[in-house]
Amino acid sequence: MMESRITIQVRSTEIDINGHVNNAKYLEYFEWGREDLYECLDLPYTYLLSQDIITVTVNININYRKEAIQNDRLTIISRPGKIGNTSFTMEQIIIREHDQAVIADAYVTLVTVDAKSRQKIPVPGLIRKHYENSES
Amino acid sequence: MMESRITIQVRSTEIDINGHVNNAKYLEYFEWGREDLYECLDLPYTYLLSQDIITVTVNININYRKEAIQNDRLTIISRPGKIGNTSFTMEQIIIREHDQAVIADAYVTLVTVDAKSRQKIPVPGLIRKHYENSES
Amino acid sequence: MMESRITIQVRSTEIDINGHVNNAKYLEYFEWGREDLYECLDLPYTYLLSQDIITVTVNININYRKEAIQNDRLTIISRPGKIGNTSFTMEQIIIREHDQAVIADAYVTLVTVDAKSRQKIPVPGLIRKHYENSES
Amino acid sequence: MMESRITIQVRSTEIDINGHVNNAKYLEYFEWGREDLYECLDLPYTYLLSQDIITVTVNININYRKEAIQNDRLTIISRPGKIGNTSFTMEQIIIREHDQAVIADAYVTLVTVDAKSRQKIPVPGLIRKHYENSES
Repeated sequence: MMESRITIQVRSTEIDINGHVNNAKYLEYFEWGREDLYECLDLPYTYLLSQDIITVTVNININYRKEAIQNDRLTIISRPGKIGNTSFTMEQIIIREHDQAVIADAYVTLVTVDAKSRQKIPVPGLIRKHYENSES
Repeated sequence: MMESRITIQVRSTEIDINGHVNNAKYLEYFEWGREDLYECLDLPYTYLLSQDIITVTVNININYRKEAIQNDRLTIISRPGKIGNTSFTMEQIIIREHDQAVIADAYVTLVTVDAKSRQKIPVPGLIRKHYENSES
Repeated sequence: MMESRITIQVRSTEIDINGHVNNAKYLEYFEWGREDLYECLDLPYTYLLSQDIITVTVNININYRKEAIQNDRLTIISRPGKIGNTSFTMEQIIIREHDQAVIADAYVTLVTVDAKSRQKIPVPGLIRKHYENSES
Repeated sequence: MMESRITIQVRSTEIDINGHVNNAKYLEYFEWGREDLYECLDLPYTYLLSQDIITVTVNININYRKEAIQNDRLTIISRPGKIGNTSFTMEQIIIREHDQAVIADAYVTLVTVDAKSRQKIPVPGLIRKHYENSES
């Protein structure tokens, strides 16, 4: 199954007063990973929009496992999760490069909406096809 | 039961390319709310630390209900949730002022650790006492 | 002369590892102030765009005077500065509420460009009129 | 003369509603560059602090030359500038990788203060030595 991997380095402005990456910053890291996954799947935001499709994040469930500090190199792995009629999920995990420790993981639920009416629509085939293997 | 309410105004740099508050920013809003709740409970970070106690966020489960845009005034409500032996939760919700719509809600799970050993410890009485009513 | 004042409270995620507001964050505060000034001048972004005008920041010169810490209440004061043919400036200052200390000040230079051609254009009358008094 | 170069990729959460990197974000990029320069010069924050020295940013003068967009790869170049008795400068520039265009440049002025008294002190030799060549 397709998965995306990007590696980033923790920067000074991402550290909070406790000396570690702030809990909100991880959601940015995970968003960067999802953006990359969309690109890996040939589904960039602009292409989806040209098809009148917007994906909207409706739930994120994130576990914080270990702390990350300045200059840590982190790999964000993102892959398709489960799919329903109008929703689908992505599974994401952040691994610290030097010891392969799991820093955080997240389960993200998205729905597809019509760009004009803003009503929920069934997940279209161009997204659904990437989930075929995961449904078996 | 004690609860904290803070009201903020959505600022331009909190808006993403889609014209609404970015999903990661809500975690900052919720952190601001938890900081205020700690202060309402007379439990600021520095006081806890002076007692050798650190609280660590281990899970956040957030639902995105509606979008917020620039200049929206949002009220972040935070209150104690449930309590176990070494963990406790906070329940948080963001309400849009002009129409009282729920924008997002979150359930946050924290554990208490010893500031020196970094080992989990039972939730101390100075936190636990704020949960007595909620357990009945 | 017209000036804008907004008051904000320093939040936990705006503090860096040194325990004070990070230097980059002040540029966000100043942007919030400029947005408010545009609104005070009846010149919101969308209105300017409807007139095919975009304002582009080309220089910011910021002085850091004192540090600000969590929960400090800060007032951001923004006012028109000087005006030339294709550029104009805004003067901004951040005052700490409890002792009226100057925390930072900034001089911001902007140019006006045509929204379509992206070429510089003379500062239009709807901006220029707010500078008349300051030129005398 | 010593210089630092780091390369970053513009991420989705660094883009504002106008579709380009927000003006405040560049100050974070420049801070990341300065952190790297300190490390290149064997002057990390913790080492300076162990010598009772803190460096404080007192002025940043930034020019915005071109806009950067999502996925752009940017190189941040940082080098020692000028040195006085109690202050020194760093010169920084951001280059877009694919066409070598200058995106932004900044001149940053810092002072050295005693970590305990918070009074200005002459720039110590361990910083000054990196400026010798630049003074000739």
